[in-house]
Amino acid sequence: MVITLSSEHNPMETNVIEVYAFATPNSVKVPIVLEELGLPYELKAVNVRKGEQKEDAFLSLNPNGKVPVLVDDGFVLTESAAILVHLAEKTGKLLPSDGEARARVFEQLFFHASALSPAFGNAGFFMRSSPAPQPIAEARFAKEAERILGILDRKLAGQSFMADDAFTIADIAHFGWLWRRQFPGLTLDERPNLSRWYETVAARPAVQRAIARVEALAEAPTSVA
Amino acid sequence: MVITLSSEHNPMETNVIEVYAFATPNSVKVPIVLEELGLPYELKAVNVRKGEQKEDAFLSLNPNGKVPVLVDDGFVLTESAAILVHLAEKTGKLLPSDGEARARVFEQLFFHASALSPAFGNAGFFMRSSPAPQPIAEARFAKEAERILGILDRKLAGQSFMADDAFTIADIAHFGWLWRRQFPGLTLDERPNLSRWYETVAARPAVQRAIARVEALAEAPTSVA
Repeated sequence: MVITLSSEHNPMETNVIEVYAFATPNSVKVPIVLEELGLPYELKAVNVRKGEQKEDAFLSLNPNGKVPVLVDDGFVLTESAAILVHLAEKTGKLLPSDGEARARVFEQLFFHASALSPAFGNAGFFMRSSPAPQPIAEARFAKEAERILGILDRKLAGQSFMADDAFTIADIAHFGWLWRRQFPGLTLDERPNLSRWYETVAARPAVQRAIARVEALAEAPTSVA
Repeated sequence: MVITLSSEHNPMETNVIEVYAFATPNSVKVPIVLEELGLPYELKAVNVRKGEQKEDAFLSLNPNGKVPVLVDDGFVLTESAAILVHLAEKTGKLLPSDGEARARVFEQLFFHASALSPAFGNAGFFMRSSPAPQPIAEARFAKEAERILGILDRKLAGQSFMADDAFTIADIAHFGWLWRRQFPGLTLDERPNLSRWYETVAARPAVQRAIARVEALAEAPTSVA
């Protein structure tokens, strides 16, 4: 079971960015940023429903056993938000170069990674996947997820996007889990500002192209073989 | 109940960085980076044992109700890792300026925020603070925390520090929870590489000064009053 990087096939070939991904909240962020930046890329399906992210071939790419993984001219990078930062800095887009505006993007990237993402993921696990009910755990994460939605909704009462009034990688980071909010059983019904933000982001052509491409991965042949 | 920023007391005064903090895994990162950078700062105690981080005065500073918060010449920034990035970029230290080395720092900052920190925090909660036993939840987070310690131990078999062979803000980020590993009942006994890394970081004079200052906060008069 071997993953061969495309640069190993033919060193003379023009580099094409590869993204190991599936239709998951964290995976979708990477095609979105690549579509927004206009960078060509090839998606490699890692079927997490079949557990392919825990197979040796994939663990050699990411010992943490998670999608997405970026392979950019032989450089392997994990952690979806680190990939967003890397691509934004490489192109000089979607991340302000300095000052308060830049710090606000990082503040949201880390708020997403440390608060929203684990709350949504664990709320969904205890609601759907726990081998037996764990009511205190389920309530803890559902309550935390709602608290976080409230914080974001109040923030968006005074600004257009997550880090300020410009679309940045902070919006892309938050979009992944909000797109998959049905897994933890959440809605935006009582969150008018967050709903408006979600519709605005979801309507972007780059976001629509990225979603279509990751959703097609569920039917794609595996890349971990 | 009002928090007055020092710049409001006397606009002519030289700016002193203020850090709202307590002796917590995330708080300690900020004094560590400030000590490493040689920047003067004032610590403001927010006694999380008394719930002061949920009081209105503090929520006006950070609606997420968490320490630490940085106040730098009137600029209020939350999320410990975003504060690390902000101070590293402001000074040009502890974060490589480009290339793979820089991406590796962000990879570890987000691995810490999204994986280690919630696993440790939730493992400790279900071990110590849950109103009733939740054995599946407790085992889930304890197992995840051990998995993460294994990943870091194997990484440190081949390099001196978390993001490569230089000390960076990635080491400061990971240090906070590893310093407080007794809360989730973890040890480094079977992790020789991680133990060596921990002792190396803990022995740094800046780290020792920062720990002494945050540990003194438990006895300090409150700043949220």
